[in-house]
Amino acid sequence: MNAPTELPSLPTIADVEDAARQLRGIAVRTPVLENPLLNEKLGGRLLLKAEPLQLAGSFKFRGAYNRISRLSAAERQRGVVAYSSGNHAQGTAYAAKICGTPAVIVMPADAPEIKIANTRAYGAEVVLYDRYKEDREEIGKRYARDRGMTVVPPFNDPYIISGQGTIGLEIAVQCAERDGKPDVVVAPASGGGLIAGVSLAIKDRHPDCAVYCAEPDKFDDISRSLAAGKICSHDGSGKTFCDALMAPHPGDITYGVMSTNLAGGVTATDDEVEIAIATAFHYFKLVVEPGGAVALASILNGKIPCAKRTVVAVASGGNIDSTLFSEIIGRTKPV
Amino acid sequence: MNAPTELPSLPTIADVEDAARQLRGIAVRTPVLENPLLNEKLGGRLLLKAEPLQLAGSFKFRGAYNRISRLSAAERQRGVVAYSSGNHAQGTAYAAKICGTPAVIVMPADAPEIKIANTRAYGAEVVLYDRYKEDREEIGKRYARDRGMTVVPPFNDPYIISGQGTIGLEIAVQCAERDGKPDVVVAPASGGGLIAGVSLAIKDRHPDCAVYCAEPDKFDDISRSLAAGKICSHDGSGKTFCDALMAPHPGDITYGVMSTNLAGGVTATDDEVEIAIATAFHYFKLVVEPGGAVALASILNGKIPCAKRTVVAVASGGNIDSTLFSEIIGRTKPV
Repeated sequence: MNAPTELPSLPTIADVEDAARQLRGIAVRTPVLENPLLNEKLGGRLLLKAEPLQLAGSFKFRGAYNRISRLSAAERQRGVVAYSSGNHAQGTAYAAKICGTPAVIVMPADAPEIKIANTRAYGAEVVLYDRYKEDREEIGKRYARDRGMTVVPPFNDPYIISGQGTIGLEIAVQCAERDGKPDVVVAPASGGGLIAGVSLAIKDRHPDCAVYCAEPDKFDDISRSLAAGKICSHDGSGKTFCDALMAPHPGDITYGVMSTNLAGGVTATDDEVEIAIATAFHYFKLVVEPGGAVALASILNGKIPCAKRTVVAVASGGNIDSTLFSEIIGRTKPV
Repeated sequence: MNAPTELPSLPTIADVEDAARQLRGIAVRTPVLENPLLNEKLGGRLLLKAEPLQLAGSFKFRGAYNRISRLSAAERQRGVVAYSSGNHAQGTAYAAKICGTPAVIVMPADAPEIKIANTRAYGAEVVLYDRYKEDREEIGKRYARDRGMTVVPPFNDPYIISGQGTIGLEIAVQCAERDGKPDVVVAPASGGGLIAGVSLAIKDRHPDCAVYCAEPDKFDDISRSLAAGKICSHDGSGKTFCDALMAPHPGDITYGVMSTNLAGGVTATDDEVEIAIATAFHYFKLVVEPGGAVALASILNGKIPCAKRTVVAVASGGNIDSTLFSEIIGRTKPV
């Protein structure tokens, strides 16, 4: 996957299929959920790919394992380093554990206790930093340099993208098992690793299917990038409780894939995400975290119409604090 | 399945396998969930069969569909009647809808709004009764007599038991897929339809596996019956929020199967069930209702030791009110 030009080498469907072989028997083949009453309300067919049921509670395990399991014996011995406040931390820590590789995870000192505790429980060494004064990438690079560790990037990496793309392969098979053909597939996006990978699989299996990314309102850097035809950042004016989806802009590799494969981007507000969380609770009995519910929210708020179509939404993670979940479920009604 | 003696005709593994053929492509093959951090805490392997992800939110759909889909064209035209305050109501209503059969569901007037609304949404005619003054069986029988409707009993029926038993067949296959062999299988029990069916499948596929039922503390009529060697009632002194598990005693058919196949019964208190609900939320991202969490609770409270063994617990349903779930998650820590 190395190219000697300044354009990045983009992963292909063959890489995604290769990742699927690598992950077979390791990652969970998460179910696709459907509810007849909700379908009736929407006037169409909504299928929810349930990645909260993935190992370590989100899709992140797939890409991390696909990356780490490719390391040479010598690289494995030196270990891996990643920076993340949440799902990528836990996914990388657990993938490293399975691969028998030491892992250093650089996390903000004010990250939720439970995420730090889980990352440690998976056997990783957690290095805390001050997110207002220190640069996590700098710290990560220092570990890479000093200990010879391999960086496991959160999204802008062909192996990471291909690993997340296995979700798209599963969606294609699971739709066929249910006598369905997806008209639209939508997944949450921060740096775009998930939706880029999913788009590789879906556009190969269903070229006519429209693939969208869903972002929190005001964190619409991918939507802007796709509209402008070049990598853009969001304007930095927004606030959101979708803590997993705050990357400032896509990477050159994720953008390269998305610019070819995506029909566009849609957004949802925090209030709409709360309704999506309550809806997933009520109709699907599934715990979804804010960032994981943005794609579902973009269907329920009408940005992705579902009437007379089959729409697949990826629920990408379920690592939400019990206090916040309790509050949301207590105050918010499902659609 | 009719015998001219006074002993009931008991379903067999052949009936369960037949039910699996009947349900293929209709019922959801619910996943088996596992969490490495929880396994580490327990010192063993815990697999959770996730029936909240079943159609209509609980295992009840399986038995109801297996019963209703066997009706003759004439019987289907006259319709079915069931009495239930919760999961059996919704499961029967949705199974009847799929079979194109009218359904009358007799429900207590003070049942949760949402369960009544869902049952109606599945197209059933809901008949409300006063649970302190009227007899729901009487009302059900009246509909059976006056309209020629077929009663769909909640548990004491060979087709119902066989339908629920398909969960056991899936557990056997899913354990094999995960390189596991179950040492113990435990499921919640009220009248015993679920665990009786599951036991038929498990004892056929894994004769050495111990099968237990789990009941709420003080609602231990099956545990008592198994210990006494005859059908017993619980003493009626208890209170529980496991509203799905309050049958006074097992039926003659469920008891007949259980007395052969079960190693015994275990119990859990409401506080222990709350911890199980919080644990399912935290580790499995799954919404489980109180009655659905009793088997998991009986593992976490130590009644079913998990150390150095593979234990499968059935989470049987997820139809819990958002207010109650919010309260439990807000106040209760997972193990």
